[in-house]
Amino acid sequence: QRRGIPEAILADGKSVEQVCSLAATALETTDRALVTRVTDDQLAAIGSRLVDPADSSVTLERRSRTVRLMTGSYDPPSLEATVGIVTAGSVDVPIADEAHVVCSDAGATVDRVDDVGVAALSRTLDQVDRFREADVLIVAAGREGALPTVIAGLVDTPVIGLPVSSGYGFGGDGEAALAGMLQSCTVLSVVNVDAGFVAGGQATLVAQAVDAARGENSPQ
Amino acid sequence: QRRGIPEAILADGKSVEQVCSLAATALETTDRALVTRVTDDQLAAIGSRLVDPADSSVTLERRSRTVRLMTGSYDPPSLEATVGIVTAGSVDVPIADEAHVVCSDAGATVDRVDDVGVAALSRTLDQVDRFREADVLIVAAGREGALPTVIAGLVDTPVIGLPVSSGYGFGGDGEAALAGMLQSCTVLSVVNVDAGFVAGGQATLVAQAVDAARGENSPQ
Amino acid sequence: QRRGIPEAILADGKSVEQVCSLAATALETTDRALVTRVTDDQLAAIGSRLVDPADSSVTLERRSRTVRLMTGSYDPPSLEATVGIVTAGSVDVPIADEAHVVCSDAGATVDRVDDVGVAALSRTLDQVDRFREADVLIVAAGREGALPTVIAGLVDTPVIGLPVSSGYGFGGDGEAALAGMLQSCTVLSVVNVDAGFVAGGQATLVAQAVDAARGENSPQ
Amino acid sequence: QRRGIPEAILADGKSVEQVCSLAATALETTDRALVTRVTDDQLAAIGSRLVDPADSSVTLERRSRTVRLMTGSYDPPSLEATVGIVTAGSVDVPIADEAHVVCSDAGATVDRVDDVGVAALSRTLDQVDRFREADVLIVAAGREGALPTVIAGLVDTPVIGLPVSSGYGFGGDGEAALAGMLQSCTVLSVVNVDAGFVAGGQATLVAQAVDAARGENSPQ
Amino acid sequence: QRRGIPEAILADGKSVEQVCSLAATALETTDRALVTRVTDDQLAAIGSRLVDPADSSVTLERRSRTVRLMTGSYDPPSLEATVGIVTAGSVDVPIADEAHVVCSDAGATVDRVDDVGVAALSRTLDQVDRFREADVLIVAAGREGALPTVIAGLVDTPVIGLPVSSGYGFGGDGEAALAGMLQSCTVLSVVNVDAGFVAGGQATLVAQAVDAARGENSPQ
Amino acid sequence: QRRGIPEAILADGKSVEQVCSLAATALETTDRALVTRVTDDQLAAIGSRLVDPADSSVTLERRSRTVRLMTGSYDPPSLEATVGIVTAGSVDVPIADEAHVVCSDAGATVDRVDDVGVAALSRTLDQVDRFREADVLIVAAGREGALPTVIAGLVDTPVIGLPVSSGYGFGGDGEAALAGMLQSCTVLSVVNVDAGFVAGGQATLVAQAVDAARGENSPQ
Amino acid sequence: QRRGIPEAILADGKSVEQVCSLAATALETTDRALVTRVTDDQLAAIGSRLVDPADSSVTLERRSRTVRLMTGSYDPPSLEATVGIVTAGSVDVPIADEAHVVCSDAGATVDRVDDVGVAALSRTLDQVDRFREADVLIVAAGREGALPTVIAGLVDTPVIGLPVSSGYGFGGDGEAALAGMLQSCTVLSVVNVDAGFVAGGQATLVAQAVDAARGENSPQ
Amino acid sequence: QRRGIPEAILADGKSVEQVCSLAATALETTDRALVTRVTDDQLAAIGSRLVDPADSSVTLERRSRTVRLMTGSYDPPSLEATVGIVTAGSVDVPIADEAHVVCSDAGATVDRVDDVGVAALSRTLDQVDRFREADVLIVAAGREGALPTVIAGLVDTPVIGLPVSSGYGFGGDGEAALAGMLQSCTVLSVVNVDAGFVAGGQATLVAQAVDAARGENSPQ
Ligand SMILES: Nc1ncnc2c1ncn2[C@@H]1O[C@H](COP(=O)(O)O)[C@@H](O)[C@H]1O
Ligand SMILES: Nc1ncnc2c1ncn2[C@@H]1O[C@H](COP(=O)(O)O)[C@@H](O)[C@H]1O
Ligand SMILES: Nc1ncnc2c1ncn2[C@@H]1O[C@H](COP(=O)(O)O)[C@@H](O)[C@H]1O
Ligand SMILES: Nc1ncnc2c1ncn2[C@@H]1O[C@H](COP(=O)(O)O)[C@@H](O)[C@H]1O
Ligand SMILES: [Mg+2]
Ligand SMILES: [Mg+2]
Ligand SMILES: [Mg+2]
Ligand SMILES: [Mg+2]
Ligand SMILES: [Mg+2]
Ligand SMILES: [Mg+2]
Ligand SMILES: [Mg+2]
Ligand SMILES: [Mg+2]
Repeated sequence: QRRGIPEAILADGKSVEQVCSLAATALETTDRALVTRVTDDQLAAIGSRLVDPADSSVTLERRSRTVRLMTGSYDPPSLEATVGIVTAGSVDVPIADEAHVVCSDAGATVDRVDDVGVAALSRTLDQVDRFREADVLIVAAGREGALPTVIAGLVDTPVIGLPVSSGYGFGGDGEAALAGMLQSCTVLSVVNVDAGFVAGGQATLVAQAVDAARGENSPQ
Repeated sequence: QRRGIPEAILADGKSVEQVCSLAATALETTDRALVTRVTDDQLAAIGSRLVDPADSSVTLERRSRTVRLMTGSYDPPSLEATVGIVTAGSVDVPIADEAHVVCSDAGATVDRVDDVGVAALSRTLDQVDRFREADVLIVAAGREGALPTVIAGLVDTPVIGLPVSSGYGFGGDGEAALAGMLQSCTVLSVVNVDAGFVAGGQATLVAQAVDAARGENSPQ
Repeated sequence: QRRGIPEAILADGKSVEQVCSLAATALETTDRALVTRVTDDQLAAIGSRLVDPADSSVTLERRSRTVRLMTGSYDPPSLEATVGIVTAGSVDVPIADEAHVVCSDAGATVDRVDDVGVAALSRTLDQVDRFREADVLIVAAGREGALPTVIAGLVDTPVIGLPVSSGYGFGGDGEAALAGMLQSCTVLSVVNVDAGFVAGGQATLVAQAVDAARGENSPQ
Repeated sequence: QRRGIPEAILADGKSVEQVCSLAATALETTDRALVTRVTDDQLAAIGSRLVDPADSSVTLERRSRTVRLMTGSYDPPSLEATVGIVTAGSVDVPIADEAHVVCSDAGATVDRVDDVGVAALSRTLDQVDRFREADVLIVAAGREGALPTVIAGLVDTPVIGLPVSSGYGFGGDGEAALAGMLQSCTVLSVVNVDAGFVAGGQATLVAQAVDAARGENSPQ
Repeated sequence: QRRGIPEAILADGKSVEQVCSLAATALETTDRALVTRVTDDQLAAIGSRLVDPADSSVTLERRSRTVRLMTGSYDPPSLEATVGIVTAGSVDVPIADEAHVVCSDAGATVDRVDDVGVAALSRTLDQVDRFREADVLIVAAGREGALPTVIAGLVDTPVIGLPVSSGYGFGGDGEAALAGMLQSCTVLSVVNVDAGFVAGGQATLVAQAVDAARGENSPQ
Repeated sequence: QRRGIPEAILADGKSVEQVCSLAATALETTDRALVTRVTDDQLAAIGSRLVDPADSSVTLERRSRTVRLMTGSYDPPSLEATVGIVTAGSVDVPIADEAHVVCSDAGATVDRVDDVGVAALSRTLDQVDRFREADVLIVAAGREGALPTVIAGLVDTPVIGLPVSSGYGFGGDGEAALAGMLQSCTVLSVVNVDAGFVAGGQATLVAQAVDAARGENSPQ
Repeated sequence: QRRGIPEAILADGKSVEQVCSLAATALETTDRALVTRVTDDQLAAIGSRLVDPADSSVTLERRSRTVRLMTGSYDPPSLEATVGIVTAGSVDVPIADEAHVVCSDAGATVDRVDDVGVAALSRTLDQVDRFREADVLIVAAGREGALPTVIAGLVDTPVIGLPVSSGYGFGGDGEAALAGMLQSCTVLSVVNVDAGFVAGGQATLVAQAVDAARGENSPQ
Repeated sequence: QRRGIPEAILADGKSVEQVCSLAATALETTDRALVTRVTDDQLAAIGSRLVDPADSSVTLERRSRTVRLMTGSYDPPSLEATVGIVTAGSVDVPIADEAHVVCSDAGATVDRVDDVGVAALSRTLDQVDRFREADVLIVAAGREGALPTVIAGLVDTPVIGLPVSSGYGFGGDGEAALAGMLQSCTVLSVVNVDAGFVAGGQATLVAQAVDAARGENSPQ
């Protein structure tokens, strides 16, 4: 049986109708739906059309602009593996949240550390032990994007750099952060600018590999 | 005890003297040296100065432009984990070889599949089972760089895309491949153009995480 | 007598008045009008001003944002040639529709196949026979734009790659798809990002050449 | 039986040994070999090692840096279709020659018109009738690359624009020509900068489609 | 006494108040004002505040988004020189109009030829004699920007290329046209994308030089 | 009779044989030849093959890498007009020299001012009167390319900016200078990076227009 | 005790609530708050919620879109050092104002000189003595960004170039100005496009170093 | 009396003759010469032609490719100020050396710290006190260029970022480092890629300002 990363609906550029209908179908066929990058209107429509406040047959969880729906009969997966998700500043939070929901939805434990940017290095250094305990790390950073480089120099955990399009001026659309992570003098791999979903998907695949390895010899 | 990725000497832009001296020091202090991107001159000098053909106290292994030296007393690491390394065409081989040596040197099993480019799709499809057996995959491709996208759509193994600067014209310096992998409609992470060392390092970190997980519950 | 590609009015950046007036003139002088990239306002005005619901003297056909008007006296051309039009995902549909209308309007048979992106390769492989039956193929794809490369490797039909500006981050404005198609390791030619009109025009010219060849020796 | 475009060996970046060995294998197995972008050394070696001047069992034809070898037993294909190949200036000739050999090798008739650049427009206008008689046109141009645009405005033949990396300064590496052809205000499709092989391959596929159509109803 | 190019107020990014106040001051101190890139609001305010319909003491002339105001006491300059201004398509008109007003305002005769794009070459060829009679030519073109190249090959008049940001996709913001004009295989000079004011200013300086030369030996 | 700019042979990328043969033909048919961008080898060959030291039937003049040949029977043109040519630094000299030879060859008076870069502003200010006396100015500058902007602010003469590819780092290939001249806050037109030939050609066309104007009313 | 640059709240992309709450906290804990890039709404809310018109316990100062709040108990720092801030044109003022407030807030004397662009060089030359009296200069300029280069050639004061994203066409987003300042033929350092805050911060750090040096030997 | 930064001769692209002659003139007129970016040949020629080993009237000092010559009568300047110069890795050394010689030559004390890259953060943290003691810091770094950002977050000293063109792949020509420093989330200013001379010059100007401030109140 294939594991793979969770199916998701990218709401960006779709109408309210399309998003609701795709989510309804997902719920009906799989007891679960994941919708990323919803607008306020899409979110409101999903809430009012798909969730019945009177009974708890469908539950809705939200993180920034990502929404997860489950029916009562949904049997969520569970992984014996931890994904660390780290952000440099508050503007990186919504993008990191996309990754967060993907990993949680796949059953990984997520250890979240926010606001440890390079400008205040001691906050980063204070968290090194937590970073080391994760099986894989996603590090989101905008502007010059130096945080993944710094963290990857301190730990042996694989680091996935997630560049964010905060900032302005030359390279401010995330290209400075992307280029910096690609040129990193420490070892890490990278996803595209603002691609929280991809970072979460890739971390999930690593977590699944680790979970499978843990399971191989585990006493039943 | 930290694992980390193997130390290496980047010969690019260093003199013959510098490279030999750095390699000699590494051998003396760690019984081992890894040198990437050697020129013919650097290679010859390493061979004649550091390896004594009369006795086998120092052995030299070479793959493309990457060289690995070991003394008899070196106790190489061993990982219970497999890295699959795939190339699209023959121009991708030397870059993939950099990754290959890094992973081997760290003790991972490397399963190498060459020449399965998208233009001859059936060769790729024939190898899907091998791809699925690896714990992590490095897929090297130049030109439009579509191979990692295609493979990541067929397997649950995490894929690290390695863009190669083959090609000419617009995007021919590896930027088309890099951009394509970053935009991939399947989930994968990416390293910089020609960064075989980084791809090998990142795959090694994933392999170490898997190996550690395998070791946790293994009967002693 | 010259054939050429159908005349069209590019509504983009024109006022409602300009578009209606140009379309009215085209209808009067040629019994036909083709308008691409209409806004909702332009579309409504065309409908209410140029089409009389009471009598069917002018008919209106619409696909996405492209509109075709014909009077009862219009004698449409007909080509003995098939253009295959393929899209990778739903965001590519409106751009492919521009090409679709141009080819239909010129009298070609259009064989349309939607939603066969590289991430689900089996759907592509299932359609190979249909692709082979076309005289020329237009393949529209955004993000990394790998679909034309994959299809061109499977068929002998000439493929025109049509890159689409879906996606975000580095190369997300269609440049990754464009660069990938230009670097394709299989043979294909390319039009500009989102240039559905040009792809349709070029396919029409090939279809006309094939139709003319078919006609040369056909028994009268 | 599939037709496809002729197999070719890209000599660029290969050693003299590799090129000769690949060509020898091609000759043995298919009685024919096509080698593009040969250096002087590679060319000399091919000549001396694969062609025996004493007997004419292997013949060698050369155009610029492209070489075609055939044994006496080779039965070349033949297409009832004409590819027009046009160059703007003398620097475009070697790139156009790559396309030329590919089309000839596939059996198409090639009608070649050199040195009709936009700076001397009357030379272009004088050739319009020849351009119209071709089934498909390749138009190679460097610098601002306006020639395909001008020709496509004068004929109904499908035009494949082939940008060439002549020129210097901003856009002088062929990007100005490429961008200009992609933005062309007349309908045409494009291949990458200096991609003579791809232009020839795409023209061959169109010529094969036309040839097949001609053949369908032809009296046996 | 210095001549120079006419002073103008760039309305872009200024408030209605600022624009009216700057124009009022210019009128008061020089009996004349030139305002470029006005919005509808700015235009309305200029009209109602600075022009009294009851008496004709201030007259207002408008071309696209450029506005010229003169009091009754203004003594306009006059040049014995002609500037030809040519556009390729209707989208180029507003940008060319900026240049037009600057030249007129400086007293040059403007010979305006619209809609002679490369796609319909015969319309261009029909006007060659008019182009030759001008002392200097401004040629505005968007998309691939080939028109200045074509015209400069047909005349000895100095040509100033004016690239326009019409178009979409790669190079569609005017960069394809700019790069094409810079790479032109005929001799011309260029101004920035959409810089109608600069093109008009430079043509004015040439017209002034010609006018001065005409005046040197003219019998008094 | 058309004037136009002088014909020239661009030696760049041509063989010694080609250059000599083209120059010989030009000499025979027009009593004159102009060769730009010659290498040392090409220059030596031109000297030894086309110029006979024993008799002065062919004279050779050289400026940087541009060479001009004339037979005794050549009747050079003469223009009553002055082109000012200004360089910012010594690295700009060879590019400015290309322009210089083109203008001289067309018969214009050239007033040359070297080494008046912006870093030593007083040297520029000292020459303003000379700049004002020219009918048209070419201003060559590399690095940030500010000199044409500064000079155009001080004079009413039309200025043609000539960006030069001196410098290193970001924009060091002439793009910073080109972009700066295109964005100039004073009025000027521009040619491509290192396009001395084009700058000279455009200045020649302006000089011819001025010369013609001077001639119109001149007493015979 | 560390000095450092003043803390600031970047309002860009934050909600009205977030900005007011961050400013309130800053006021409470440090008796002072600095908010950059406020919108009209954010500004109004700050005024009405944090400032009580009835008593003067909190004062508000504003420059362009930057706002500074202080309670009565705030003891502002004071530096014995002068920062000169120079703008080329009126569009540069709001960006320079960001720098201005940062320097004032840190206690530096600010000597402000507006509207001395390169197009009117005499206005620049008139101010050279003032420029020389500053301890450090910030020079803000858009378009071609030549002003810092010109000023740095006239004074020994360190110059910090501040490129501004005024302008349109190629390089009009501030990249021409940035590249020009980086390529400057006089010595200066640079901050990112529109980074008034960073320019002010860096000038503050230099002013603090000068102030400290002045204080070392000053008689107490 | 103006101070300014030291005059230097940029040997890059000059002949051996030119460099020697310029250096000889500098020595004669100012008793001192500074030559940057010398080749081996230029260096040898300077040594043999300008320095007489028999007597010590001219002394030569060299750092990487920068050379400083002084006669016995040269009275070097002296500044009471310290410039800290920091490099991330060994490839940054030659570029930092250019800055080093400029600062030394102007009389500043240089405190040099090599090889404290971000990959080994503890080496950086160990040196923070030294960084704090400098009056101004130059921090040279290639690849992702994160070091200046990290250091500027730890000290109040003004930091000048010096990006270096080490690295390969996307952004490997120093653009990743440049963009990262421009986007830095800590305050710093930047010079162009590899512009060691400019960094040294700017640091010198700050050191001179500090030195002058120290001198103002110093007891005579
Ligand atoms: N081929 C390579 N590409 C990128 N980084 C490399 C490569 N080879 C070695 N390295 C890294 O560069 C460091 C060596 O740098 P160096 O001290 O200059 O020899 C090693 O520790 C690796 O982290
Ligand atoms: N969607 C489109 N994309 C590109 N070109 C188009 C498009 N629609 C129409 N055109 C072309 O633009 C011309 C119409 O331009 P206009 O005269 O401005 O309406 C037509 O003749 C077509 O050649
Ligand atoms: N240095 C140059 N830069 C640009 N164009 C040149 C240059 N020298 C000559 N040309 C142009 O190139 C043409 C010669 O091309 P060719 O026939 O290849 O020698 C001349 O007629 C000129 O228009
Ligand atoms: N206009 C600005 N441009 C760049 N950085 C700024 C600006 N204003 C404030 N900052 C910086 O951004 C930080 C505030 O970020 P935040 O916590 O998101 O408010 C401050 O500490 C400053 O270092
Ligand atoms: Mg690490
Ligand atoms: Mg997968
Ligand atoms: Mg095919
Ligand atoms: Mg046509
Ligand atoms: Mg001409
Ligand atoms: Mg002027
Ligand atoms: Mg200075
Ligand atoms: Mg700091």
